[in-house]
Amino acid sequence: MLKASICTIGDELLIGQVVDTNSATVSRAIGAIGAKVTRMVSMPDDGRQIVSILKKELERNDIVISTGGLGPTKDDITKPALAKLSGAKGYYMHQGQLEIVKQILHSRGLDMLEINRLQANVPDTCEVILNKRGTAPIMVFRGLGKGNSTLYAMPGVPFETEAALEDVVADIKAHYPMDNILHHNIMTYGIAESALSKKIAAWEDSLPKQVHLAYLPDPLKGVRLRLSIYSGTLDNEKQIIDSKIKELSDILGDTIYSYEDDTLEGAIGKLLKKNDLTLSAAESCTGGEIAHLITTVPGSSSYFLGSVTSYAVSVKEKVLGVKSETIEKFGVVSSETAREMACGVRKLIGSDYAVSTTGYAGPGGGDKDNPEGTVWVGVATPKGVFSQKFNYRNDRKRNIQRFAASALFTLLKQLKEEVK
Amino acid sequence: MLKASICTIGDELLIGQVVDTNSATVSRAIGAIGAKVTRMVSMPDDGRQIVSILKKELERNDIVISTGGLGPTKDDITKPALAKLSGAKGYYMHQGQLEIVKQILHSRGLDMLEINRLQANVPDTCEVILNKRGTAPIMVFRGLGKGNSTLYAMPGVPFETEAALEDVVADIKAHYPMDNILHHNIMTYGIAESALSKKIAAWEDSLPKQVHLAYLPDPLKGVRLRLSIYSGTLDNEKQIIDSKIKELSDILGDTIYSYEDDTLEGAIGKLLKKNDLTLSAAESCTGGEIAHLITTVPGSSSYFLGSVTSYAVSVKEKVLGVKSETIEKFGVVSSETAREMACGVRKLIGSDYAVSTTGYAGPGGGDKDNPEGTVWVGVATPKGVFSQKFNYRNDRKRNIQRFAASALFTLLKQLKEEVK
Repeated sequence: MLKASICTIGDELLIGQVVDTNSATVSRAIGAIGAKVTRMVSMPDDGRQIVSILKKELERNDIVISTGGLGPTKDDITKPALAKLSGAKGYYMHQGQLEIVKQILHSRGLDMLEINRLQANVPDTCEVILNKRGTAPIMVFRGLGKGNSTLYAMPGVPFETEAALEDVVADIKAHYPMDNILHHNIMTYGIAESALSKKIAAWEDSLPKQVHLAYLPDPLKGVRLRLSIYSGTLDNEKQIIDSKIKELSDILGDTIYSYEDDTLEGAIGKLLKKNDLTLSAAESCTGGEIAHLITTVPGSSSYFLGSVTSYAVSVKEKVLGVKSETIEKFGVVSSETAREMACGVRKLIGSDYAVSTTGYAGPGGGDKDNPEGTVWVGVATPKGVFSQKFNYRNDRKRNIQRFAASALFTLLKQLKEEVK
Repeated sequence: MLKASICTIGDELLIGQVVDTNSATVSRAIGAIGAKVTRMVSMPDDGRQIVSILKKELERNDIVISTGGLGPTKDDITKPALAKLSGAKGYYMHQGQLEIVKQILHSRGLDMLEINRLQANVPDTCEVILNKRGTAPIMVFRGLGKGNSTLYAMPGVPFETEAALEDVVADIKAHYPMDNILHHNIMTYGIAESALSKKIAAWEDSLPKQVHLAYLPDPLKGVRLRLSIYSGTLDNEKQIIDSKIKELSDILGDTIYSYEDDTLEGAIGKLLKKNDLTLSAAESCTGGEIAHLITTVPGSSSYFLGSVTSYAVSVKEKVLGVKSETIEKFGVVSSETAREMACGVRKLIGSDYAVSTTGYAGPGGGDKDNPEGTVWVGVATPKGVFSQKFNYRNDRKRNIQRFAASALFTLLKQLKEEVK
């Protein structure tokens, strides 16, 4: 099995001003071809440390992929470190990348500065994989570590890292023999990790030795169960996993919302599209997050017509047509208001389905019946109107996410009851 | 200076299914009291590796903070590794944490399972800091490494990590003498990193040796400039930084939107609140992201009334009152449509200010004048209606974010012209 280490470079990571998303992106890409990531290390913009850490990782692994430290500004010192590490005698200007630098600056209406030009200048010990989306090239240093290890030094801008990964993966496949690997995802929602674990304990114990199960909870997606096999003949393992997943489906039923690496909004989109149905949303406490999640799905414009964020009571009444008596009698955060919001936006926008939220994301707000962390979800469909209450804890940002996920799950459940 | 290492544990990190946000959270918290993070390492759920990596990090650092590997399910093997690492002879049940486990399960209406109970069972070599928000306690192992290093083993659920950090930070301050540290953030928007670097090159060269400058680009916040000093007397350094920031302000002018670690939506909120003004939004391509960003700010309900996501043309016309002739003549993605959307939502919702977006986030869509990656932003105010066009590249998720940020920046610029 190909052993890999992912190294991210940059003071901004170490002081916590930037969350490292590159490591996960790179890991998914090389994991898909069967590489096993043994470690991820984030290090500062410090030449000595870069050399020392990369050296050790190269000795322990077949490949090391680094990202970051290659921007145009003065706080970047990675390139000299890589030159030293690889024993470079000098630099050369890579004409292909220089051409891309020119094009990118031109398309943005910017002048070519010396610091831009220097981005295409690389140590004479490396080959270059073109960075088509950005100015800093991908540098490939071969024959390092104990002799056959390769270092891929990639730029740190996530968009560029992502775009260049395809070429890096192709280079890895061209230079190393790869094992087979199989990951299977089962997406559940509405059940806690510990309860889930108890429910499937006997099933888990019955899994063959070579199958590894992991519980991966996510506030937006629920608990993902991941079955992995790292080696062996693929055909046979596919059969084993298929029959085990069938058993799991009988145990968990509706709790499972997808058998692939999907999201609630993705699963909703597929059902709506397949049945030629449309959707709208009325959001109070989720403040646009539901619409945002739904519209991150490419092609969502074919079923999502629009939404109203009704933060103020006046907007609930005037735009969505919630009756003022309803709000007076039952409160803004209530089953009744959620239902009227869903019906109101469905009518206003003219969609087949509508989902609504009203709740207290915090900090503050709430009463005895509906404390901070409470959300009421409404769902209006061609067959009727439904509502459900969820309770979470005291963290505004996470509550907004959990509220939105709960609303999507409620909508998805109802959708599944009404259409195939 | 207190040297710290942050270690995150979990297969889910190494296969890239989960992005590690804990490292950044922990780093910000301990950085604020002057600790310097020297390295971040992510490792698999593998006892031998956990012991070996933590040992090395403890030798190199004064403190090591680990997160993860402490959930209730079977794929967690961190606790035995920590017992081994610290030379524990056995385990003890921590009654305080057990009480919290009981309370949490009770409040969620769940039964206490054996795997829940065992969460409060810890190696006899550790002290416990209570985890008030979750079931797994924070374990503190002292006297490791070369004799005076401390390992804080925290749970991996980000919400719990965050909540428990305050107590961990207090423990660090109680046990180690801390240096002074000073970070200053200057938030810019609408200028590329390389152009910014050129513009302030002379200023950057004039910075005193002990001041470190970093460029931290973020698609949602623009380029953040961070000035840091890690040691010395605080009073004197504050003066130096203040005068340098004054110079920078003269060079960059309007490009700077905040002198603290703020966001565009945060800066907008402060201005609106101060002037007792209200806001609404009409979103097409940004699909709720603007409303979502605005409402992540606590207290936003005092100025944000609501928004309409008008994904379908019918919603633009029927709900927002955009004239069908406007769309026919100028197109959905046009200055005219953006302006009518902003005016329409301002009138519908009855706010002082309104911001709108219409564009092509991709994949696909667009024409010669307005290719994929184009967004038109409209801003309607008590003084008039304005529009501005932005061009980005071909990445749906990032385009939605950049579009939303561009809209917020356009709104903020106009706001600053009209109010103080």
